[in-house]
Amino acid sequence: MQSSAPSGADPLPSWTAGPAKQRIVDFVQAVTKDGGKDYVAPADRIATFDNDGTLWLEYPIYTQVRFVFDRIKALAPQHPAWKDKEPFKSAIAGDIKGVMASGEKGIVEMLLAAQGGTTGDFAIVVNDWLVKAQDPRFKRTFDQLTYQPMQEVLRYLRRNGFRTYISSGGSVEFMRPFTERVYGIPPEQVVGTRQKLLYEVKDNRGVLVMQPQIEHVNDGAGKPVGIEVLVGRRPIAAFGNSDGDLAMLQYATTGPGMRLGMIVHHDDAVREYAYDRTSPVGKLDKGLDQYKAAGWTLISMKNDWKKIFAFE
Amino acid sequence: MQSSAPSGADPLPSWTAGPAKQRIVDFVQAVTKDGGKDYVAPADRIATFDNDGTLWLEYPIYTQVRFVFDRIKALAPQHPAWKDKEPFKSAIAGDIKGVMASGEKGIVEMLLAAQGGTTGDFAIVVNDWLVKAQDPRFKRTFDQLTYQPMQEVLRYLRRNGFRTYISSGGSVEFMRPFTERVYGIPPEQVVGTRQKLLYEVKDNRGVLVMQPQIEHVNDGAGKPVGIEVLVGRRPIAAFGNSDGDLAMLQYATTGPGMRLGMIVHHDDAVREYAYDRTSPVGKLDKGLDQYKAAGWTLISMKNDWKKIFAFE
Repeated sequence: MQSSAPSGADPLPSWTAGPAKQRIVDFVQAVTKDGGKDYVAPADRIATFDNDGTLWLEYPIYTQVRFVFDRIKALAPQHPAWKDKEPFKSAIAGDIKGVMASGEKGIVEMLLAAQGGTTGDFAIVVNDWLVKAQDPRFKRTFDQLTYQPMQEVLRYLRRNGFRTYISSGGSVEFMRPFTERVYGIPPEQVVGTRQKLLYEVKDNRGVLVMQPQIEHVNDGAGKPVGIEVLVGRRPIAAFGNSDGDLAMLQYATTGPGMRLGMIVHHDDAVREYAYDRTSPVGKLDKGLDQYKAAGWTLISMKNDWKKIFAFE
Repeated sequence: MQSSAPSGADPLPSWTAGPAKQRIVDFVQAVTKDGGKDYVAPADRIATFDNDGTLWLEYPIYTQVRFVFDRIKALAPQHPAWKDKEPFKSAIAGDIKGVMASGEKGIVEMLLAAQGGTTGDFAIVVNDWLVKAQDPRFKRTFDQLTYQPMQEVLRYLRRNGFRTYISSGGSVEFMRPFTERVYGIPPEQVVGTRQKLLYEVKDNRGVLVMQPQIEHVNDGAGKPVGIEVLVGRRPIAAFGNSDGDLAMLQYATTGPGMRLGMIVHHDDAVREYAYDRTSPVGKLDKGLDQYKAAGWTLISMKNDWKKIFAFE
């Protein structure tokens, strides 16, 4: 996954020259400078990234919710009762607004109905879906709808001895099957919302079976907790895009020494989307009020990024 | 943490020549042989180790229970009610049998009273204790009571591209402060029993505060679950010593390809201890019945190990 770019080359070619790009480069140079006052040993170079809206598209519907819709449709023949029961009825009809009317409770119920079986079997379902499902606006599979400038940040950090982690509100068992291929982030570096798992023996093989129960919600104050469970170290850098990421940003940036906190601001209605304070998805409200005082840097997709997607 | 031993040297000098040693060496050579039929890519070379009784002393009392006793004594002045309440009263008096009479429920209550505060502050408490507390029989601090032959296995595996994980019934926040120094295993590779954590802001710094509630018991069928939460991959090798490790051994050894499962048998009453089927600590009963059919190898401490501890 490592770039073979010569060391003199621009590590962030999709970023326009400006304070956001400069902040990243300055930080990396400072913490990797041997003998410098801000030097951080490689073992502690931990950077955490939100996924939805930070590394890939989340608007107008989280990609995992699209997956859940398709999965419910695929499973519907085995569940005849669903055709008269919300939110399943709306999901099968492709009626997003109808599903949304069930609120978070309805969406979680649907997610738990859609995500089960052994972790191994579920990984196959996810990867099968990911190679065929397309975003309706961009007409691309979702693994192509990652933000090229952020891919460059991931690679730049790794080339400088960082370990890059995802800490997302998405389900860990949904993300792990593709994060290595799509982002170069291996499964052991993916933190997410967790369903309860049970260990069972099937066909003489020990397996882990996903239960219809949420055990950890990796959002808001749950993000630092999820990071501690997996990593046991405080990150020194964090990237997010919504109010759900602020606790993670605060956790990463209130440790001793130099720290980096950055927020991707969706302000590009032409090339992607523009949404923040009032959006039902990826709401960024408190973050816009707080980022300056907290010392975090806002990334303008419109101004700081030369391109959004690799295929542009 | 890497050894600088020349490649021709015996990687396991504290092991006597025999089937246990041979099994480990054959396995490592097979899975690392480029182009061989049993080759495993480095990313999937995951080995998991129980801690108590597998990597260090657990008898006649788990080391963490000794820590909890001492911590209760240290905290007692702030909790006057404890002097009349079991199991605290017995713990303060150093009466181990009195504590044991409270059963598992009493011990967990005591553990939760002893282990709290921020993860950072708790790590300091653990390390302060570890440099001074001594085992009464061996008159050594507990970080010296690790099994030298197992330390050699850890290093041998890591030199061959493995990542070594601990998956222990002990508390993760108790182990992480010392596993890197004592075993060369960093905090992100330690799976254990978890207390609930809450994210809070104290003195303008984001911290994680240990709550008096067990969230995950990393024993028995909980071990594969704990491994999945941290690693997201099935180990290819596992080492344990008690029935609480059998699910982990089964999980590791029932995947495809060559696998290694080994059980440390405490059969050396002279140099350490001899206990198995009827022991209240480190009980190994079902494991003795099952290991042959499962294809696991028993390690005799008495016969397979030239020395138990480095200081011998």
